[in-house]
Amino acid sequence: MPRTILPDARVTPRFAGICTFCRFPLLDAVPPENRPVDFALYGVPFDAGVTFRPGARFGPRAIREASQYIKPYSLEHDINIADVLSLADAGDSPISPFALKETLDTVADFALTLGEDTTRLFAVGGDHSIAYANMQATWFRHGQPAGGLPLIHVDSHLDTVDITGGEKWTHASPFRRAIESGFLNPRRMLSIGVKGPLNTARDLDFAREQGINVVTYEQWRDPSSGASGRIDAFLEQLGATPVYVTFDIDMVDPAFAPGTGTPSIGGFTSAEALGLLRRLGRAKTGSPRRGLNIIGADVVEVLPDRDVAGITSLLASHVIFEVLCLAALWKAGSHS
Amino acid sequence: MPRTILPDARVTPRFAGICTFCRFPLLDAVPPENRPVDFALYGVPFDAGVTFRPGARFGPRAIREASQYIKPYSLEHDINIADVLSLADAGDSPISPFALKETLDTVADFALTLGEDTTRLFAVGGDHSIAYANMQATWFRHGQPAGGLPLIHVDSHLDTVDITGGEKWTHASPFRRAIESGFLNPRRMLSIGVKGPLNTARDLDFAREQGINVVTYEQWRDPSSGASGRIDAFLEQLGATPVYVTFDIDMVDPAFAPGTGTPSIGGFTSAEALGLLRRLGRAKTGSPRRGLNIIGADVVEVLPDRDVAGITSLLASHVIFEVLCLAALWKAGSHS
Amino acid sequence: MPRTILPDARVTPRFAGICTFCRFPLLDAVPPENRPVDFALYGVPFDAGVTFRPGARFGPRAIREASQYIKPYSLEHDINIADVLSLADAGDSPISPFALKETLDTVADFALTLGEDTTRLFAVGGDHSIAYANMQATWFRHGQPAGGLPLIHVDSHLDTVDITGGEKWTHASPFRRAIESGFLNPRRMLSIGVKGPLNTARDLDFAREQGINVVTYEQWRDPSSGASGRIDAFLEQLGATPVYVTFDIDMVDPAFAPGTGTPSIGGFTSAEALGLLRRLGRAKTGSPRRGLNIIGADVVEVLPDRDVAGITSLLASHVIFEVLCLAALWKAGSHS
Amino acid sequence: MPRTILPDARVTPRFAGICTFCRFPLLDAVPPENRPVDFALYGVPFDAGVTFRPGARFGPRAIREASQYIKPYSLEHDINIADVLSLADAGDSPISPFALKETLDTVADFALTLGEDTTRLFAVGGDHSIAYANMQATWFRHGQPAGGLPLIHVDSHLDTVDITGGEKWTHASPFRRAIESGFLNPRRMLSIGVKGPLNTARDLDFAREQGINVVTYEQWRDPSSGASGRIDAFLEQLGATPVYVTFDIDMVDPAFAPGTGTPSIGGFTSAEALGLLRRLGRAKTGSPRRGLNIIGADVVEVLPDRDVAGITSLLASHVIFEVLCLAALWKAGSHS
Amino acid sequence: MPRTILPDARVTPRFAGICTFCRFPLLDAVPPENRPVDFALYGVPFDAGVTFRPGARFGPRAIREASQYIKPYSLEHDINIADVLSLADAGDSPISPFALKETLDTVADFALTLGEDTTRLFAVGGDHSIAYANMQATWFRHGQPAGGLPLIHVDSHLDTVDITGGEKWTHASPFRRAIESGFLNPRRMLSIGVKGPLNTARDLDFAREQGINVVTYEQWRDPSSGASGRIDAFLEQLGATPVYVTFDIDMVDPAFAPGTGTPSIGGFTSAEALGLLRRLGRAKTGSPRRGLNIIGADVVEVLPDRDVAGITSLLASHVIFEVLCLAALWKAGSHS
Amino acid sequence: MPRTILPDARVTPRFAGICTFCRFPLLDAVPPENRPVDFALYGVPFDAGVTFRPGARFGPRAIREASQYIKPYSLEHDINIADVLSLADAGDSPISPFALKETLDTVADFALTLGEDTTRLFAVGGDHSIAYANMQATWFRHGQPAGGLPLIHVDSHLDTVDITGGEKWTHASPFRRAIESGFLNPRRMLSIGVKGPLNTARDLDFAREQGINVVTYEQWRDPSSGASGRIDAFLEQLGATPVYVTFDIDMVDPAFAPGTGTPSIGGFTSAEALGLLRRLGRAKTGSPRRGLNIIGADVVEVLPDRDVAGITSLLASHVIFEVLCLAALWKAGSHS
Repeated sequence: MPRTILPDARVTPRFAGICTFCRFPLLDAVPPENRPVDFALYGVPFDAGVTFRPGARFGPRAIREASQYIKPYSLEHDINIADVLSLADAGDSPISPFALKETLDTVADFALTLGEDTTRLFAVGGDHSIAYANMQATWFRHGQPAGGLPLIHVDSHLDTVDITGGEKWTHASPFRRAIESGFLNPRRMLSIGVKGPLNTARDLDFAREQGINVVTYEQWRDPSSGASGRIDAFLEQLGATPVYVTFDIDMVDPAFAPGTGTPSIGGFTSAEALGLLRRLGRAKTGSPRRGLNIIGADVVEVLPDRDVAGITSLLASHVIFEVLCLAALWKAGSHS
Repeated sequence: MPRTILPDARVTPRFAGICTFCRFPLLDAVPPENRPVDFALYGVPFDAGVTFRPGARFGPRAIREASQYIKPYSLEHDINIADVLSLADAGDSPISPFALKETLDTVADFALTLGEDTTRLFAVGGDHSIAYANMQATWFRHGQPAGGLPLIHVDSHLDTVDITGGEKWTHASPFRRAIESGFLNPRRMLSIGVKGPLNTARDLDFAREQGINVVTYEQWRDPSSGASGRIDAFLEQLGATPVYVTFDIDMVDPAFAPGTGTPSIGGFTSAEALGLLRRLGRAKTGSPRRGLNIIGADVVEVLPDRDVAGITSLLASHVIFEVLCLAALWKAGSHS
Repeated sequence: MPRTILPDARVTPRFAGICTFCRFPLLDAVPPENRPVDFALYGVPFDAGVTFRPGARFGPRAIREASQYIKPYSLEHDINIADVLSLADAGDSPISPFALKETLDTVADFALTLGEDTTRLFAVGGDHSIAYANMQATWFRHGQPAGGLPLIHVDSHLDTVDITGGEKWTHASPFRRAIESGFLNPRRMLSIGVKGPLNTARDLDFAREQGINVVTYEQWRDPSSGASGRIDAFLEQLGATPVYVTFDIDMVDPAFAPGTGTPSIGGFTSAEALGLLRRLGRAKTGSPRRGLNIIGADVVEVLPDRDVAGITSLLASHVIFEVLCLAALWKAGSHS
Repeated sequence: MPRTILPDARVTPRFAGICTFCRFPLLDAVPPENRPVDFALYGVPFDAGVTFRPGARFGPRAIREASQYIKPYSLEHDINIADVLSLADAGDSPISPFALKETLDTVADFALTLGEDTTRLFAVGGDHSIAYANMQATWFRHGQPAGGLPLIHVDSHLDTVDITGGEKWTHASPFRRAIESGFLNPRRMLSIGVKGPLNTARDLDFAREQGINVVTYEQWRDPSSGASGRIDAFLEQLGATPVYVTFDIDMVDPAFAPGTGTPSIGGFTSAEALGLLRRLGRAKTGSPRRGLNIIGADVVEVLPDRDVAGITSLLASHVIFEVLCLAALWKAGSHS
Repeated sequence: MPRTILPDARVTPRFAGICTFCRFPLLDAVPPENRPVDFALYGVPFDAGVTFRPGARFGPRAIREASQYIKPYSLEHDINIADVLSLADAGDSPISPFALKETLDTVADFALTLGEDTTRLFAVGGDHSIAYANMQATWFRHGQPAGGLPLIHVDSHLDTVDITGGEKWTHASPFRRAIESGFLNPRRMLSIGVKGPLNTARDLDFAREQGINVVTYEQWRDPSSGASGRIDAFLEQLGATPVYVTFDIDMVDPAFAPGTGTPSIGGFTSAEALGLLRRLGRAKTGSPRRGLNIIGADVVEVLPDRDVAGITSLLASHVIFEVLCLAALWKAGSHS
Repeated sequence: MPRTILPDARVTPRFAGICTFCRFPLLDAVPPENRPVDFALYGVPFDAGVTFRPGARFGPRAIREASQYIKPYSLEHDINIADVLSLADAGDSPISPFALKETLDTVADFALTLGEDTTRLFAVGGDHSIAYANMQATWFRHGQPAGGLPLIHVDSHLDTVDITGGEKWTHASPFRRAIESGFLNPRRMLSIGVKGPLNTARDLDFAREQGINVVTYEQWRDPSSGASGRIDAFLEQLGATPVYVTFDIDMVDPAFAPGTGTPSIGGFTSAEALGLLRRLGRAKTGSPRRGLNIIGADVVEVLPDRDVAGITSLLASHVIFEVLCLAALWKAGSHS
């Protein structure tokens, strides 16, 4: 008996039916035997935090549609997420397109109503500002751990700007704000994929001062940079500690994700991106798969109006799947 | 207390939330006080009946998304459909992309399970072959009236071909089949919008022999053609008789509906198309509004992969709205 | 000697060079002999006021590019705008994407610095919220006339909502706010092109209470509606009074302007839209051309990410041209 | 036995097979019983004559593809072109993208080799410069009539510029050059569809001096302009005289033909364009159909890279069909 | 004297002329001196076998157009295919869009009529179901070898599903059916590029039971997986045995091939795909080039309506070229 | 005090303002303290030299727009180009679309008027033919060095064809012409990225005879090819010698640069392309950064009509940035 019941594709082909994330049931429709729900996925159709090109408010809708093609079994990890995890689509958070901070509060409040106490929160953006809200809710739900949560951050940008355009709560600042609020532990934050050009040489100062573990994309590509060892060390130290994962789709090259608001030339390929996520499931390359004890997650910055044949939304759907695989591996290993 | 409860746009903006047709509630979620449901809208994601370009199987999904912007009050008719009609989205019919006739049977069976005995069936295609199935279900549900149902057919093509490519059940043939099956009364069928080029001069023979009332687009545009008077006469004769309405999106010019499989150059503008539908709500131009006693309907042939900025799906959403306005006018006038 | 010096197309073809509106000179580069400048065109790259689809912040950039193909002589009006008017591109207003009301104040302040005291202000949006700012600046610059300015408003929507999503200053409200602020005289406001569907029957109440002269698109198309006579009466009464013109590109059908944020199905064709503008240059159809004493203007709601082959931006460029023709006719007739 | 043998759509559906214009046979494959060929259609993949946006060199290829959906029977004219005319695709003319005048000579030479002495030449562009070459070949083939050929010219632009960018042979000049060369009789030239804006008031001088019969689009739309009577008079005077027809796709609005190089806002709808062509088949509105004695023709300025869902190429295909209908009507009436 | 005569690009540039595959001559036009033809390429415009997104019926047309830019000399292999092989375009097979198995039979029958007894068959799809038909014809033409043909299969999917949607003959099943029919030897089948997610862990069972040599994309990328050695062993064992090659364009990442019906995120780059094909021309990396004794081939699943700037069709054209290079190398080495 | 003053993004966000290359000041607006200007960037909106698909005349406009997002600090090189170099946008060169050689002369003349004697010339195309003109101007400005300039050429094609379509000055020939004219030293020319297919085996003969150092893309990818050592040797030998850099955007795969006229399947990824440019700043991999003494440069062949979401133009903008980084590194190291 699967933990997540998916529609029968013989009756409802993947091009048919009302779209929920990955064809997961609506949260209200999850039967008692699949309670408590392991992950509640919810949309945050919000883009008032962007500094350049808006439109990510349509991200949840596009990802719901593209994710109809996601199947539950990972060939690469040899695990079926629907067998291991109870998964549900909780709909979209209320938002106001005219109020940044108020919306973040609303989103966090909404998230805390979802599922049961142990249900983990998976936000689908929307712009990266919403990561603050989902991290806040995750931190609250899981006992407000002192020092904040560890974070794995995959992105072309650090998102630790203080103020931009007079505003503190944009998509350039979520992790600075989360550190200030105590949700996020900067010394247990691993940020992978940063690349140039930047505005000034000082753009990395905050990260360095806070002790954030930054692996640039150039370092990640360069076997002689020591990046691989640093990732190994981070994961080894992380062990069973619950960790939050935030994934900005602009970490891949615009060829793979044209549908995003601040595209960054010279990024990961999709294969590299999926490979990176899969690699996080092992303490180091070649180690046995153990997954990750993911306590909360988000995938952000999909902008459908710039997308091409839906490939960005489809990639985001696969990222959701791969993140859930890491959680499923962890749970299947009886780690939690 | 409205008959159809729509989401509060202050909490769930039109770019947010899981998409149902026009934001109507899911059929299962309609509260008892709004039972019986007046119209059940359902998708038929099926395009195996096309003779040229496939892809209309994605039509229901695209129309659900585009129709989020439909509001309930018609300025032109001065009527609020949500005040008058209980409306619901019944999801998509099961279909098989590999079996034409079997799918039509499945669709008709599915439709007959929807709502209450008096619930009227509104199919959203999918290709035009599915009109046969929804007409069949409508005919059954409403007592299998001898002689078949009256039909208002808006289309660039007559769709009365006998056999094409060896197949009887394609989108070129639904009305011929419906006449043969007794669901449709050809002498009470009004077909508006046909245009050339055709394969041969004999393509209209069947329609003429059966007594179908054909108004070509050229006649419709020509005040001297007598078309207007023929439409008046049809509507006058129709009176309170329940009528089925079938609308093929390719009746408008490809500039207005690029997203369709057999586009027909030189068609209606969108304004003309909406004007035509509104005009059907009066016995003749200038008469008082009475609406139409619509017993079943379909909107078909939206092909999202050829669409541009979603304008075809948005137009189809407005067509659904205008058809429902005609039904709401009728009901509000206590005609039914 | 022309009043506006345009680049020599033999040296700089229309696909070459840095783009300014219609190839007009930068304001700072207008030579003394062409001072004072008659119209300063400026961009307002702002879309934080939208209720649905954002992206109009890229409107000024796209219109600058598309307008390279605008030539100065109107065949239809037999007037060369560059011979009559001194025209300049004043660049873009400063804005903050995170602050609605503050940005409107900033825009109005910026506009008041442009050109000379008699220079008229032509804003290129951006979303419709910015009309408030340009009307405010126009009203100030021209002596704060008591009772407010007359307005010709061409749009699919009335834009007189009070509050939406908790916000007073969105693109749904500029004319309500302008009436409240005394910039705009509702009894001398002509609004052409409104169409349904609307949220409720009460959406028109404010306009009716204020005495706004509303011509729906359906009325405009219907010779028996009396709309033409009402427009004649408005223009006759207007006479030489300075008037503000605001043009929302969504008044045309999405086939002609797919690149907009709240497209409205069943609208004007481009030919009808240009015809409407040209008709405003005569007291009534068939009268001699006199133009309009346009004291300020805006063209708004171009959203390039949804555009197709640049046709929406090109249409907006032609609207700018036609509005300037009306002003040129007025000036050439020695009316001002 | 038809004069033109088309593929059996039951064996080769319209999405199958190697593309020729309208599925006509290759010229070399026309059987003896269908000799002499009435019209040889050939492509001229040439765009070195454009002043703005190039790419029409891909026009013939795109029109071949789109025209697969053209069927032979005109509902509106009640004539089947394949029954009356022997039609063939003669392939593409050799051209050099680096040599304007030389290419025009090459095209004319190529055209003169096609079919039999009585075969009429139908060029598919390519930019409008190529009209000169096809007119030249037509004039030669048909005995170099003194005074030149009559011409019906449908276009947003007059194309009678003398020199642009230092060049005499661009797409802005073909009719000036043809008049100078004696192929074209300006006093029997009817030009329909011109619209503004233009560079200067003098752009029409040449046409006026030469006595060209110019009907602007604004005049065409205005029942009080006398344009209809002027067209009647032209056609009445034309009678049985052989006439050349040149059709620039940019005469329709960019909503209907986005795929063109110098789009002109506020143009014909597709329905109006087809209606205009059909109307040319009657001496005046309401007269019996007689067709036109078309001695040569071209359809030009399709630019596929700007097209949307192929609607411009499909429209061009229908224009070809409608022009051939006029010729078929003429021939069927035993006029030739 | 070349074996394949290509058009002179000085007379017919690559953007000119009627499109055949890679500008090869039509089969009927191959001169006697180039008989027998080595490879007959033919289109199969068929997509009734798809389980998700249809439209590949337009694949042959799009590939013909894109392949106009293919030149005959391989820099990487130092071989000119037109010097070595006689190549021809045989047009499209008849098909019925309404009949799966019947169409496969028709295609196989058609293929067997092409060229001479030794002519090898190269099918261009169309969906992957058509591989069954071309393999069947290949097997017949070459003596119905007992045990079936060896196969190199490049794909993101195994295509060995038994039944889907009640149908045995879809694009999910061609190789299962071919094994059952005896055309294909599963123990000599190498399948490269499979990736997840899949429906269940059992999706690979059939392949494993039959002894198919499966190299997943993850294995292919991982130097430690042993995949390279397995490929070497397969090729070494293959030696001079005739082999069939089937290439599904969805093996590359959607960034490189957006135009396909079941895109698979995280796939090959185009450079990797071409590199893989070139590597098959050597017994192992670093060995001398010998090519492959290719007895039949297909390239499938190009869906033009989802393509972007024609890059998918262009890639498919290059795949055709690279497959022909392998055959040319083999022939040039006097292996056959 | 920076050498290049960029707009304050808090006042003029990156989506606002009139577009210049990378937001650099117009050349005329560079203040005295930033004189002399180090690099003048100018557009060459010219594509009459193409052999296949035209449209690169719109390249400078598109790159100006996309480059608004370029920031001045290179994380990878740890250098801020605006601190080191005075950079300016000099507008577009005059051109004639109807005259190849004359335009090249005009461009060279125009370039020589820009900035001061030491200002280096950076041309933004336009097609590759314009490299000849900018090389000529560079050679003149810097003293007409005997033997010609060294060249680093990054491209999928060699561009050393003699004559094509009867023309000597197309985009297929600039380096052959530059060698003949003495501007370019073939023995100090490094060409990276060439790939097949080619027309004939002799296409490389000229390069080989002239001693051009050709590194094919296949060699570049193959660690065993010796390509890396050859590049090292070239750079070591180059040392402080001024060098010209020419970059054809078609060197990357069409997935990364769909917007180009002769796309070449199987090319560099964007990350590889930027990595290659960065690697040129070190004498060899692992050496300290020294940059390059770049005396002139161009980036060419961006064709916006085929682009997708602006990714090709954005990539070209980054290429400009990376080339300027190399020059900044060189200057910062006091090498010049």
